[in-house]
Formats: sequence, structure tokens, C-alpha cells
Amino acid sequence: MPTLYHHPMSTTSRFVRLILSEYGFQADLVEEQTWEKRREFLTLNPAGTLPVYVDDNMRTLCGCTVISEFLDETHGVLKRDRRLLAEDPFQRAEIRRLVDWFLQKMEQDVTRPLARERVFKLQIPNGLGGGAPDSKVLRTARGNIRQHMKYLSWLAGSRTWLAGDRLSYGDLAAGAAISVLDYLGEIDWAESPIAKDWYQRLKSRPSFRPLLAERVRGLTPVSHYADLDF
Amino acid sequence: MPTLYHHPMSTTSRFVRLILSEYGFQADLVEEQTWEKRREFLTLNPAGTLPVYVDDNMRTLCGCTVISEFLDETHGVLKRDRRLLAEDPFQRAEIRRLVDWFLQKMEQDVTRPLARERVFKLQIPNGLGGGAPDSKVLRTARGNIRQHMKYLSWLAGSRTWLAGDRLSYGDLAAGAAISVLDYLGEIDWAESPIAKDWYQRLKSRPSFRPLLAERVRGLTPVSHYADLDF
Repeated sequence: MPTLYHHPMSTTSRFVRLILSEYGFQADLVEEQTWEKRREFLTLNPAGTLPVYVDDNMRTLCGCTVISEFLDETHGVLKRDRRLLAEDPFQRAEIRRLVDWFLQKMEQDVTRPLARERVFKLQIPNGLGGGAPDSKVLRTARGNIRQHMKYLSWLAGSRTWLAGDRLSYGDLAAGAAISVLDYLGEIDWAESPIAKDWYQRLKSRPSFRPLLAERVRGLTPVSHYADLDF
Repeated sequence: MPTLYHHPMSTTSRFVRLILSEYGFQADLVEEQTWEKRREFLTLNPAGTLPVYVDDNMRTLCGCTVISEFLDETHGVLKRDRRLLAEDPFQRAEIRRLVDWFLQKMEQDVTRPLARERVFKLQIPNGLGGGAPDSKVLRTARGNIRQHMKYLSWLAGSRTWLAGDRLSYGDLAAGAAISVLDYLGEIDWAESPIAKDWYQRLKSRPSFRPLLAERVRGLTPVSHYADLDF
């Protein structure tokens, strides 16, 4: 069976897990603490980042873009109307733009700083960058959430799914980021009813179940995290 | 004619310019100061990042991954042995891994901090984040260069081009990053003869000429910057 090196609070790992699940792949999950810089892991991915996918022939794919494009080329392309990337190059460009938006821009503005300050710094030893959360970083990241939720609401309000009529990598990327923030109780859903409707539809999919059932050691999710009707 | 919004010190812009040039595209170049947050530019790309490509039909592509994948799908695929992404999915994965390496990891560890401290902060008004370079940031980034040059040397020493036998997006991504650092005189070539040999071959290509001829206002490049025999 293939192996996916991941972390429950890594959005890019969640993105790939959702793709694998939507396409019906089974994979062994190995939780990696990247800050430990394990030699075996760095041999697989010298960049030391998640996720990393090792297939049945021990061939290694590093990073969510590499893995998602590979899965599209080798499997998605055969899925017709269940393909998670479109056929048309401009539609594909729009889907990829959204993946970048949620897994790079929102990651940088909001998700990575909040996850680092609230989750990773508690697990990382002091000498390696662990410690108490930095309240200034938290404040800045929280200030950025509102703008991102507005954009998400605009997308969700003007299209059936975020990139158009069909579920796509764009929805899975957004869902990966939103689900991490929601675990941490950082999203005020009362402020974003349109985004909430979209997220409700997305989190009701079977591919979301394993994410909603997962718990991070020492960190209880917000009470509605796993509720499909929140 | 299509338009490319870019900045001379943006590695992702340089990457796309190299691709366009290798494939024989002409495009109008518009230099964008992203920190000005021009309304017209944000309408094209709400993320406010470079590069942005607007085609003859005013369709917009945002970000280097989106643009490079689009160019491969619509043009590269017809280029046979001059294609800059491979045919084989695993080979494509390796090329994309290298693009990520040079335009995300190296960008984060080295190129972005050095370009920000040494170029952008001089151009950005004080209230918007401009000012004197932060010597601690410079020191950290410079400390990271050596490891990246080692990895580049390893790739260049074990393969004809960085991803294998053929010139690929991997070389153009690395060349985009290295050329910005070389402009700034941040690379000690005497320490990396194998990487130097690779870069010498790359910068001799006609696609590199416009980059080597370009100058940033108020910032003279290192004396050997445009020399093909440096």
C-alpha cells in the first residue's frame, strides 16, 4: 500500500488526503513531526516539508502540487465528470489559482501562523523554536481571517462550487485550510452564512470523515468541529 | 500582444519570462510595484502577487504555477523534445519538485529575504514597510545560501540538466532564482564550480539575454552579472 507522510494540522497534507479519498485510494498514514528533521524523512524529501507520498514501487512524490498534479495525470484524467481538475485549460488555471490562494496566500496570511503559534510551538522543544504563542502574530493572523472569509463567501455565493459547477481541487484546498482553522475555533460562522453553506456541503462528503474524526494530542477541537449541521 | 505584469527582482516573474522566451512568445512587460496595491492590478489578481499574464483575449492567469502549467498544456505539449515539462508523469513530478524547491523553498530561505531587504525596502515608502535592511535577516539568509548551492551543485553534477537529460522548467526556475542572487552579488562562484558550469550554459541561452541586460533603478549589478564567461 502507498504511504502518505502527513501531519493532522498540515493543510497541504489534508488537501492530498481529501484527493486520495475522493478518488478511492487507500494509503498508510504516517504522522511526521517535520521539526525533528529525521534523517530517513529528509532522504525522502530533502526540503523536509509535508506531504510526501511513496507509492507501491517506492517512488516518492514531494509536496502537494507535485502529488495533486501526478494524481490528476495518472487517475483524474480517467474520471470524466468526477475529475477534480477540469478539461479546459482556462478552467484548470482557475482551479489552480484557487489552490494557490488557499494553500499559499491564506496559508501565509492566516493558517500557518495560527497553526504554528497554537499547535506546533506547544509540541516543538524550546531549543528548536517551541514555546509560548506570540500574541502579536496571533492578532495579525486573526485580523487577516475576515478578508479571506469574505473572498470565500464571494466565491461560494457566485458559483455552485468554488471554481464553477463541479467539485474541484479548489474546494478541497479551501476545505483543507478551513477545517484546520475550524478545529482551532478560529472561524466565526455567524459572520459568513454563505461560506458556511458551502462548507456544510463539503464536510458532509465521505472524504471528510477521517479528518473530522481525527484529534491532535492535547488539543480538543471546537465543539461543532465534527458536526455536519453546525 | 499578451501582457506580463512582472518585477525585475521577482524570481517567479523571471521564471515565466524564461519560459515565454524559450517558446518564442512575445509579451509586453509591465513592471508592477505590488506594494502599491494598485486597484487595477488587484482586479486582475486579488492575491496581489506576481507574475500575472493577460492573453490577447484579456483572459488572466495569476501566479507562476498557473501560468507555467497553462503554457505547457497549450504549447509545451506540442514541442516534442523541446518541451520544458517531460512526457512521463514521474519525470514531470521531479521537474515540478525542483520548481517548488527553487521558487518556494529557496525563495523562502534565501531569495525573498535578500531581495526584500536589499532591493524592495529601498523602494517601498517607510510607512508601507520600507526602510533600512535588517542585518539579522540578511545574516540568516546568507547562511542558508551555502546549503542551497550545495544542493544545486549536487543536481548539476549528477545530471546533464537539473532534472535529467533535457532542459526543463527545473533549470529555468533555478536560473530565475540564481540570477537574482547573482545580480545582488550574493553568490561566491569560486565555492561552486559545478553549479557555475551549469549556470554558464544556462545564461548563454538567448532566453537569458533580456534578463542580463536589465537593470534595477539605483542598484548596479555585480560586475560579472552579464558576463557569459565569468
